[in-house]
Amino acid sequence: MKKVEHIGIAVKNLAEAEKRFEKLLGTAPYKRETVESEQVTTSFFHAGESKIELLASTVSGGVIDKFIEKRGEGIHHIAFATGDIYAEIQRLKKEGFILINDKPKKGADNKLVIFVHPKSTGGILVEYCQEIPDENEDVANF
Amino acid sequence: MKKVEHIGIAVKNLAEAEKRFEKLLGTAPYKRETVESEQVTTSFFHAGESKIELLASTVSGGVIDKFIEKRGEGIHHIAFATGDIYAEIQRLKKEGFILINDKPKKGADNKLVIFVHPKSTGGILVEYCQEIPDENEDVANF
Repeated sequence: MKKVEHIGIAVKNLAEAEKRFEKLLGTAPYKRETVESEQVTTSFFHAGESKIELLASTVSGGVIDKFIEKRGEGIHHIAFATGDIYAEIQRLKKEGFILINDKPKKGADNKLVIFVHPKSTGGILVEYCQEIPDENEDVANF
Repeated sequence: MKKVEHIGIAVKNLAEAEKRFEKLLGTAPYKRETVESEQVTTSFFHAGESKIELLASTVSGGVIDKFIEKRGEGIHHIAFATGDIYAEIQRLKKEGFILINDKPKKGADNKLVIFVHPKSTGGILVEYCQEIPDENEDVANF
């Protein structure tokens, strides 16, 4: 684990939450991204080497809406950056953690992500994520 | 706001939670500290430039116990580092946020801290903190 990559926050209305967090953090959001497979639109703020990621449902009754119904708006997950997500999966399994997905899937912000179930972490949805390498990087460097 | 200083996590049993988080994060806690005024014992882990702060009540029925009774174990607050907590207080008040304490108090880890009420942030207890300058620093440097 290299750092806190981001803190994910469940919100009802993305535009209103962006205004609130811009005031709270004293910095503006720098990008929005929709992840169709997760039915969320995300909005990102820089916070040092970490990010704050607001999450709003794109459809009524989506995962984030269900979370808010149950728990109210607030922190949804913490994500830790890792340099090798496949090694992290093996390590976490060996330590007895319950993974929600044990094959990495593509998340927001060009990342491969896995989630650890809150019932094995003491109530926290934990994400591990790894930047997807740019396939054209070698070419671009020439 | 300079960075995510730490993420505070409410736990029932500090020793058990330390073992769980040591496995989760792949790193051992580096210090424990009791803050008598807050009736908590804290345990810290490094996570890049941020920290994970476990919080357990020192007395039965303390603030953290009450939080756990209501919400279960899990994330209790996010803390942002600031270089000038007094300017931050003025800025947050001007923006309409409700401060739980508008005079900084001494928290764990040699910090001056204030808390913003979750009802003004969209469900998140937000801390701002500033390192207390070492009074002997100038002397020590000679």
